[in-house]
Amino acid sequence: MANSPDQNIRRIMGIDPGLAITGYAIIDSNGRTHKLVCADYIKTNSKELRADRLHYIYKNISDLMSLYKPIELAIESQFVSINVKAAISVAEARTVSSLAASMQNINIFTFAPTEVKESVTGYGRASKQQVFEMVQMLIELDDIRLQYDITDAIAIALTRISEWKYL
Amino acid sequence: MANSPDQNIRRIMGIDPGLAITGYAIIDSNGRTHKLVCADYIKTNSKELRADRLHYIYKNISDLMSLYKPIELAIESQFVSINVKAAISVAEARTVSSLAASMQNINIFTFAPTEVKESVTGYGRASKQQVFEMVQMLIELDDIRLQYDITDAIAIALTRISEWKYL
Repeated sequence: MANSPDQNIRRIMGIDPGLAITGYAIIDSNGRTHKLVCADYIKTNSKELRADRLHYIYKNISDLMSLYKPIELAIESQFVSINVKAAISVAEARTVSSLAASMQNINIFTFAPTEVKESVTGYGRASKQQVFEMVQMLIELDDIRLQYDITDAIAIALTRISEWKYL
Repeated sequence: MANSPDQNIRRIMGIDPGLAITGYAIIDSNGRTHKLVCADYIKTNSKELRADRLHYIYKNISDLMSLYKPIELAIESQFVSINVKAAISVAEARTVSSLAASMQNINIFTFAPTEVKESVTGYGRASKQQVFEMVQMLIELDDIRLQYDITDAIAIALTRISEWKYL
């Protein structure tokens, strides 16, 4: 039995985690054609307690997942920078995002920043601006806020979508 | 109006976070006399997905908090070691523990490892064995498993208790 095109559309969420700003994007795709459902960022107040900021990210991501029901989460993997404190902040924001997915039985796929750049631009050391420009060519962005945190989240989701060979 | 001794007893949870093993302890104290309610560790399977291991820690800590209802959580603060990967694993386990506390409105207090050693043994560079021995002198351990992950969790809780000057 042949599948109708609609049955091939899957919904994915991409997250670019950060303690200060976590970018996210929800995309519907059949592996070739992509439609941006929504994309924005979650910003936390640096004057608030760290635990409260992480709780805020968790709550928002969790609510978005409940609302949009993606079947997959694509998120940046462990980012080991020379700045340990920055790496830990990213790890914390990634942890609450992954936990939200795990609690809703959403499959999690992680990608290193270089993998995302390689997948989207063909060059693992591409700049954020190059990723931004390529994302604009790959998917119609309509009226979303154009910011690297958001286009990075879209790029992470597109990286996972490029693996949907079975569709 | 004078308070009866019982009214001065507060319940605290101490956590020594780790991706592989997270030690925890629940203590009732009036600031001077301490009673160990329970103490053990949560062990995760290294063959499982990282997100599932963190979810497992979250679930167990969350259930313990619901059951024992501590009013405070004392937990190790950001631990910056020369090993970035190890620091990130601890950060992840700490994040899910703190999130569980935050979701149940439990106040979180963080302490650096040196603060805990200083508070319990009087020496910031004390060994785990020295902390272990001092903990055994400060609180009756009964039949708990004697393991550093657990005695460290007790030491972290005792560090916070030593700040209860107002009791």
